[in-house]
Amino acid sequence: MRPDGMSEIDHLFHPRSVAIVGASSKEKSFGRMFLEGLMRMGFERIYPVHPRDTEILGLKAFQNVKAIPDEVDLAVLMTPPGDTLRIVGECAEKGLKSIIIFTAGFGEKGEEGKKIQQEIARIARQNGIRVVGPNSIGVYCPSAKLLTFPQGLMHGMPEGSGPVGAFSHSGSFVDYLTCILVRKGIKFSKVVSCGNECDLSAVDFLEYMGQDNETKIIIAYLEGMRNGRRFFELAQHVSQQKPIIVWKAGVTEAGAKAAFSHTGALAGSKQVWEAMFRQAGIVSVNSFEEVVDCLFAFYHLPLPQGRKVAIVSGQGGTGVGTSDNCVRLGLEIAKISENTRNRLIQILPPVGATADNPADIGVAVLVQPNLYGETIKILDQDENVDMLLVITDPGRPCTQSIVEAAKSVTKPLVVVPYALPELVSAEYEYLSQHSIVTYADAKRAAFVLSRLADYAGYRSATGT
Amino acid sequence: MRPDGMSEIDHLFHPRSVAIVGASSKEKSFGRMFLEGLMRMGFERIYPVHPRDTEILGLKAFQNVKAIPDEVDLAVLMTPPGDTLRIVGECAEKGLKSIIIFTAGFGEKGEEGKKIQQEIARIARQNGIRVVGPNSIGVYCPSAKLLTFPQGLMHGMPEGSGPVGAFSHSGSFVDYLTCILVRKGIKFSKVVSCGNECDLSAVDFLEYMGQDNETKIIIAYLEGMRNGRRFFELAQHVSQQKPIIVWKAGVTEAGAKAAFSHTGALAGSKQVWEAMFRQAGIVSVNSFEEVVDCLFAFYHLPLPQGRKVAIVSGQGGTGVGTSDNCVRLGLEIAKISENTRNRLIQILPPVGATADNPADIGVAVLVQPNLYGETIKILDQDENVDMLLVITDPGRPCTQSIVEAAKSVTKPLVVVPYALPELVSAEYEYLSQHSIVTYADAKRAAFVLSRLADYAGYRSATGT
Repeated sequence: MRPDGMSEIDHLFHPRSVAIVGASSKEKSFGRMFLEGLMRMGFERIYPVHPRDTEILGLKAFQNVKAIPDEVDLAVLMTPPGDTLRIVGECAEKGLKSIIIFTAGFGEKGEEGKKIQQEIARIARQNGIRVVGPNSIGVYCPSAKLLTFPQGLMHGMPEGSGPVGAFSHSGSFVDYLTCILVRKGIKFSKVVSCGNECDLSAVDFLEYMGQDNETKIIIAYLEGMRNGRRFFELAQHVSQQKPIIVWKAGVTEAGAKAAFSHTGALAGSKQVWEAMFRQAGIVSVNSFEEVVDCLFAFYHLPLPQGRKVAIVSGQGGTGVGTSDNCVRLGLEIAKISENTRNRLIQILPPVGATADNPADIGVAVLVQPNLYGETIKILDQDENVDMLLVITDPGRPCTQSIVEAAKSVTKPLVVVPYALPELVSAEYEYLSQHSIVTYADAKRAAFVLSRLADYAGYRSATGT
Repeated sequence: MRPDGMSEIDHLFHPRSVAIVGASSKEKSFGRMFLEGLMRMGFERIYPVHPRDTEILGLKAFQNVKAIPDEVDLAVLMTPPGDTLRIVGECAEKGLKSIIIFTAGFGEKGEEGKKIQQEIARIARQNGIRVVGPNSIGVYCPSAKLLTFPQGLMHGMPEGSGPVGAFSHSGSFVDYLTCILVRKGIKFSKVVSCGNECDLSAVDFLEYMGQDNETKIIIAYLEGMRNGRRFFELAQHVSQQKPIIVWKAGVTEAGAKAAFSHTGALAGSKQVWEAMFRQAGIVSVNSFEEVVDCLFAFYHLPLPQGRKVAIVSGQGGTGVGTSDNCVRLGLEIAKISENTRNRLIQILPPVGATADNPADIGVAVLVQPNLYGETIKILDQDENVDMLLVITDPGRPCTQSIVEAAKSVTKPLVVVPYALPELVSAEYEYLSQHSIVTYADAKRAAFVLSRLADYAGYRSATGT
């Protein structure tokens, strides 16, 4: 912690001024994209650095960071690898607090690159500078109007920050994740691409986001890990306050080989990681889709009291396979009370419907769509039910009834439009607009509920 | 086989004339929906049967099937359960060939219902009639202009038949499956909802579709099975000619309980089914999404020669997790030849790209999108590569390059738009329009390739 009460990583996410080293007015260059994007975000104290140009896109440009007549907190480097050490030295002389090295071609390319990385880290340490990268696309911190992610810069990011923090060994992972999810109403606190981690690493960002009051949910895409024990101890602690959703890649031999070419990190064995994740209460996922699926649930839903799920479907069939998938994933099918059963019998037709769990509304939904909402409300009130998984019948009347019921539902409720939203998207859109957590497939919904229940179980076992 | 060379089930799918028993002009009734829908399909010899009305929607109506002054091949019954036995008797007197009983409330409701089912089956057997149901939504056979599925009737079905046959213990499963997939260019041969199977059952339809020349891919949603041994023997044989994609629900205790309330069938143990499926070369899936995912692959792609996959991605990261998921699902990451590696090195930039497997195009794709197509073509030509899994970079230039390359690719190629199509759908649509098999998530793509390789392995082990 520095005298001003801000940590070193706070300074990275909240710089007062930024130097873009390698800024350019050339069309389609990264130097231009970064500069333009940052200006469009409304960031004010930007200083382009260029060896010859004296003005870029209307801003005064400087030959090097030392020539900037202002305090500079952060430099973003997109210069050739061979220039990096010199520029880091200049940043040290200028007294910068943080450097993001966008440039690739270091540790992931072999021993010589690794040595340069070590030298960068040494200079930084000596001068109190924290470095992100090399081979990093930088950071996104909406409350600071700071963004250096290519997709976000190209497509623009809406204003506003929120509870999701993320760090990643893949730049494109956080780049696409943020760019896409802000368009679905998800808001972020701080996001960072760790790159080759010559200085700051995933462990540092876990610690920072664990303490950060703005961050309520943490997402991580990880390949290797320089300090697994420390990460594990931290995660065990952080999980007691906020969920950490982790996609750990490179856990098979083939994945580990690919990870090494990607960021030069060693990836570790599958078994070790899985055991570690379980003990640390980490929400473990294995694909981009699973990250997003879990995030929506943790973002919008309360934690369940237990693992007992009630299933509601229309017109048969789907409830059966969904029961299977829930049980396979470690959930229990709630045994509903006699009172609940009687209340369902009173509203559901005697033929072509099932007043049990799974509850099948049956074809009656075509004439009485409100039966969906009524059934959901009755099941929500049963103390044997911890969570609700609802498979819709197509058509607005049915989804409207669910949206209405959801307003008074107190337990985690997830909805699956029957059938796939890639194929028929109107109901999916409608439900999502009403902040109903909606999945393309009941198996995916069951997976998310199982992760929600696992995490709730960890919290309750650790007394938090 | 009857004297006319058509099997009994051929008559069910190709009736020359249909009686709709319970036809109605009442708005929003099933009787009206069926009648209107069948008329809209262009089916010509339709006879509405109604106790009082003498004309329904412009067609002459009859008091009972016996009063129809024409040979009637098929009757569809949507009358109350109590009337069913009497009407089946009348159909027998009239000499019908097939009956579909839409009405529910028989075997799935208890012993008395089961007895009535047995009596229906007895009358049918004595009179050479084959019965589908009760509790069935009937059949879809586009070449006969025959359709009795509610969603299809409500939303209409385009003309044209094709290679996909399906049978199901859930009516809604086939109803939605067909209605949705025809809109994605998939064409069907014969589809049937088996219902409670008082006479014709899943085993009969597997045998029929196995022999049917029009059917090249079979889909089944199964809950219980009345004759598991026979199903297994048939499947083992049929799989040698055509893939059978099966979603077997009710394999956990909870699922089995739900299946019993649904169709009154006993579902059997998970282990038994899994072993049986493997030995019979069945393509086993566990959700609606997995059915659809596998169908697209088997519909559009050739079978691979082996299990070795090459992965192409842009801008890092994603290739690593995808390698993991491929290996987890039993695929191998192809070891590319020196020649292939050299060809990749020649086209890919030295920094920020990986000329290996996974091949990472890296940020160069932003300026040279055609590198995607070039990389795909080079990997396709490597004899160590059996299949290609490509994760795109967003934007039309990249997907265009893939679409172009796909024209000359000889091995199974699946594409995953980075990122989720539920969230950004333009590229997904574009690829699908060009018949590129496209998945929302790389883990799903890896799953499908593993199923494709499993099936190819079964075919090659059985010498077919």
